[in-house]
Amino acid sequence: MEVRLAKNSGFCFGVKRAIKIAQDEAYRRKEKLVTIGPIIHNPQVVQRLEKIDVFSVNDLAEIKNTPAIIRSHGISKEAKLELKKKLIDVIDATCPYVSKLQSMGEKLSKEGYYIVVLGNKEHPEVLALISYLSGKYLVVEGPEEIIDLKAKKVALISQTTQTYEVFEKIVKKLLDTTFELHIVNTICSATTIRQDSTRLLAMDSNLMIIIGGKMSSNTKMLAKISQEYAETHHIETAKELDNAWFTNKNRIGISAGASTPDDLIIDVYNKIINISGSQLVVNSISEIPVFKEETR
Amino acid sequence: MEVRLAKNSGFCFGVKRAIKIAQDEAYRRKEKLVTIGPIIHNPQVVQRLEKIDVFSVNDLAEIKNTPAIIRSHGISKEAKLELKKKLIDVIDATCPYVSKLQSMGEKLSKEGYYIVVLGNKEHPEVLALISYLSGKYLVVEGPEEIIDLKAKKVALISQTTQTYEVFEKIVKKLLDTTFELHIVNTICSATTIRQDSTRLLAMDSNLMIIIGGKMSSNTKMLAKISQEYAETHHIETAKELDNAWFTNKNRIGISAGASTPDDLIIDVYNKIINISGSQLVVNSISEIPVFKEETR
Repeated sequence: MEVRLAKNSGFCFGVKRAIKIAQDEAYRRKEKLVTIGPIIHNPQVVQRLEKIDVFSVNDLAEIKNTPAIIRSHGISKEAKLELKKKLIDVIDATCPYVSKLQSMGEKLSKEGYYIVVLGNKEHPEVLALISYLSGKYLVVEGPEEIIDLKAKKVALISQTTQTYEVFEKIVKKLLDTTFELHIVNTICSATTIRQDSTRLLAMDSNLMIIIGGKMSSNTKMLAKISQEYAETHHIETAKELDNAWFTNKNRIGISAGASTPDDLIIDVYNKIINISGSQLVVNSISEIPVFKEETR
Repeated sequence: MEVRLAKNSGFCFGVKRAIKIAQDEAYRRKEKLVTIGPIIHNPQVVQRLEKIDVFSVNDLAEIKNTPAIIRSHGISKEAKLELKKKLIDVIDATCPYVSKLQSMGEKLSKEGYYIVVLGNKEHPEVLALISYLSGKYLVVEGPEEIIDLKAKKVALISQTTQTYEVFEKIVKKLLDTTFELHIVNTICSATTIRQDSTRLLAMDSNLMIIIGGKMSSNTKMLAKISQEYAETHHIETAKELDNAWFTNKNRIGISAGASTPDDLIIDVYNKIINISGSQLVVNSISEIPVFKEETR
């Protein structure tokens, strides 16, 4: 049995940065901190932060005098104002690519563009983004939701974790009815790279294990892409692995979302190796064999 | 033998308007007028205007005190300034869609966009357009000429007579390397409609006759599209028709560019009918059978 890890997987820049900010501030301040919503969409990371006194709250009303960390997905304009009014000490861990998306959306909306957002309608990143839009907008999850907006100027932006293929289809659809179309490709390159690596590995595997939070948008997208090519299971930790999945499977691929820490990936790899009867466990992510991608 | 005319063919709004301006001014002023370059790309129309004392000049130096008509394709910013300096009375017959293209190009260029123009590098419309661009630009005739511009902001515009299919391919190519892409679909809808009608007719014909000036960009494009589906001949007048073309051909299609006057179309139709042995000549364009397009 061959077990290989996707070339690009696990923590992205924005996630690493957000966790580092939370940890650094917790050590420096030596007081309880809160994050507004889970800092990233990974329950295991959230639990670890609780051990150093960083707790997630879902409602701003719960925050009294505790310093509050804005998570990687950002928060709404209104929430930011409310924190200011309540004189809460704010630590901003919004992913810089998400901040860029918010400011581009705000600017284009002010300039009179009808904003089309490719994204998950309920996702916190999208909910925060639309709070910055002052004019008309439409959130779509795919090209089939595009209608003739009867607008002279349309701008298209995207949640950072969407797929480029869908983005491109939406451009094509919008071009049919739009005289002036302004496109900002706000899909994070880390997202695209992880998706490409996962696709290539899935094409060469007969079983794929995708590791990451069940609420994680980018991990769900990896699982969706993977299942087009191979049997795919989306798990959060090694505990969920089922021996039965591995019967008659000889090429196993592993990939992990941008919010999945290395040690969870190592655990999954070791458990799979164990199921296959091998004793060769690894202690670091660099010891896991990586799938060699063909140069395209 | 069946002879049918494309549903949408012949004079477009901008061409009709330019000729009307020239005729009206010639009658009103009762003096010699010049056009800067042929008013439209149709030699027969240019010859007719000469009979009412409207002559085409190619060089601004030739213009002394004669009022000058700016033709439908527009003229460069520099030429406009020179006319002003020489105190020439200017009559502007630039197609309003071309004027719009020029002003959009000028605006976007000032805003710092790297301008990509889809167009014929030597065409007067394109030469006039680029004179309004103050920053970097690239004129391309197809997607294969698109390179990574290494620009943060790129804007795409098009000569009004290009095909939408090529425009779309260029969008796709530019998206690969561009973070912020501003697209203005300046392809004239009259152009697109004529191309669609010609394509549908060519698909249902075994011989196509495309009528229009040999220098006419939009007519050449119709011929190019048509020859993908049927044997195609691009002619200026009925004189060029060759009896041999019609041997064993039973479904003949006729289409005409946006600068082709009705009477040239009527002449061609009557000559073809005559070749086929019929005596049923027509006297007006409305008598020519039009190809019924399928609703798509």
